[in-house]
Amino acid sequence: MGEYFLLNGKIVKNRDAFLGLTDLALLRGFGIFDFCRTQNGKPLLLDKYLDRLFNSAQCIDLKIPYSKEFIKESIYQLLEKNGIIESGIRMVLTGGYTENGYAPGDPNFFILIEKINFPDPSYYDKGIKLILHEHQRELSHIKSINYLTPISIRKKIEEANAFDVLYHSKDRILEVSRSNIFIVKNNTVITPRENILRGITRTTIISLAKGNFKVEERDIHIEELYQADEVFMTGTTKRVLPVREIDDHIFIKDSLGKVTRTLKSLYQEFENSTSAIAGPGDQG
Amino acid sequence: MGEYFLLNGKIVKNRDAFLGLTDLALLRGFGIFDFCRTQNGKPLLLDKYLDRLFNSAQCIDLKIPYSKEFIKESIYQLLEKNGIIESGIRMVLTGGYTENGYAPGDPNFFILIEKINFPDPSYYDKGIKLILHEHQRELSHIKSINYLTPISIRKKIEEANAFDVLYHSKDRILEVSRSNIFIVKNNTVITPRENILRGITRTTIISLAKGNFKVEERDIHIEELYQADEVFMTGTTKRVLPVREIDDHIFIKDSLGKVTRTLKSLYQEFENSTSAIAGPGDQG
Repeated sequence: MGEYFLLNGKIVKNRDAFLGLTDLALLRGFGIFDFCRTQNGKPLLLDKYLDRLFNSAQCIDLKIPYSKEFIKESIYQLLEKNGIIESGIRMVLTGGYTENGYAPGDPNFFILIEKINFPDPSYYDKGIKLILHEHQRELSHIKSINYLTPISIRKKIEEANAFDVLYHSKDRILEVSRSNIFIVKNNTVITPRENILRGITRTTIISLAKGNFKVEERDIHIEELYQADEVFMTGTTKRVLPVREIDDHIFIKDSLGKVTRTLKSLYQEFENSTSAIAGPGDQG
Repeated sequence: MGEYFLLNGKIVKNRDAFLGLTDLALLRGFGIFDFCRTQNGKPLLLDKYLDRLFNSAQCIDLKIPYSKEFIKESIYQLLEKNGIIESGIRMVLTGGYTENGYAPGDPNFFILIEKINFPDPSYYDKGIKLILHEHQRELSHIKSINYLTPISIRKKIEEANAFDVLYHSKDRILEVSRSNIFIVKNNTVITPRENILRGITRTTIISLAKGNFKVEERDIHIEELYQADEVFMTGTTKRVLPVREIDDHIFIKDSLGKVTRTLKSLYQEFENSTSAIAGPGDQG
């Protein structure tokens, strides 16, 4: 964690940053957040993450008490003060201090600057393992702070030697706990569209893929997943992360699939070009 | 709220009680709690609430760092120091301070003493209104802090002039946001059994009802709800609260149904007799 955070509009030292016990995130898990990161020290696609943050707040009827401009300015100040080379930027809005243990008060808003835990570089060559778990995220189109299910099964994931969990609802796959999932079949790139969080990285990858492959956003049955030629996941810190194995199905035998390799490279180029021009691109 | 809380084993003033921003309830809504109350100044069925608290913690793989005896002793001290006549007792366990924004640390545990917001006495004569909302609570058998859905639709509930929301999953009713639901048909008392939190008050009511009526714990279809003779809800602060109306179906026309009236009285007797002997009864 960084040495300086933003709390309710003020930059404060990490060790002096506290909330009272009646905050509605503590008592009722009520809050939303977003998480972006720097690339070469500059926030990547910050405007898009801010749009999503404000949209999540609106969907649970909370108002962010600061402008996007103020938040951006604060993030730049925090990045400078913390001096971490590549940072995670976590913006959290809670239901605020409740009078009666249930009704929201004035929201509390804070920003943490974190050291990023990028996946081990070797995972990008050999791929990672996922396990399936039946779960449909609540209010899946927004980024709420609710991670009750995946954190509660952390030992099951660890015992399976898995990297993370892939949710399914009945026979359809949905998303990884903090990432989106893609499959490739006969050079077509396919990813679920409904009942998921549509990640910023997912949107970028779809745009990049469209220039090179057929892309379909639609339901994917578990059986279709098992028959896939390639599987990968995408996310802010995961980028394009190849999936080797889901339960007992192996997708990478010798080397990475061609489509995954292509998209990994395209995304790397995108990151470097976007951060080089010091502002977000137009990849909606 | 009371003037004194318990935080990580120490009694502290409300205004000096804080948690740092990396607590996993703030960042990931990860925690469990329980809530009981006093009756005539003494905690009602405290052992049963403590059992449930410890069970909830175990189900999400968190360990409560104190014994039940220590927690009980602390509650008695807090009640004395706060000096509120009838108190709500909220015990909360969070995932603790996370190093990486996701993995739990050592849990934080705190107890708040609150003034109770009992329903308006007139509601016990005329009944309250509920609205239906499709929602299945995550890990429904435990008392997690996740109230994302009901708090996010608070304005919808208010605009309908409703008291609370009754969840259903497809065509089956489940539970109210913080209470259980019962229906009465031809003098049989019926309540859902699966995919709900089995409330402490629910258990007591089932025991009391069994001495007087036929009781069934089973699925209830929405159509069966609409045909009910009487509907009521139960909870720690709600006791036996009659339901007048759900969406456009009216269950109380002139006066309260006979079964609801009987159970209201029996529960009142139970509360008084239990608190009079200063300890929990055997109503499992």
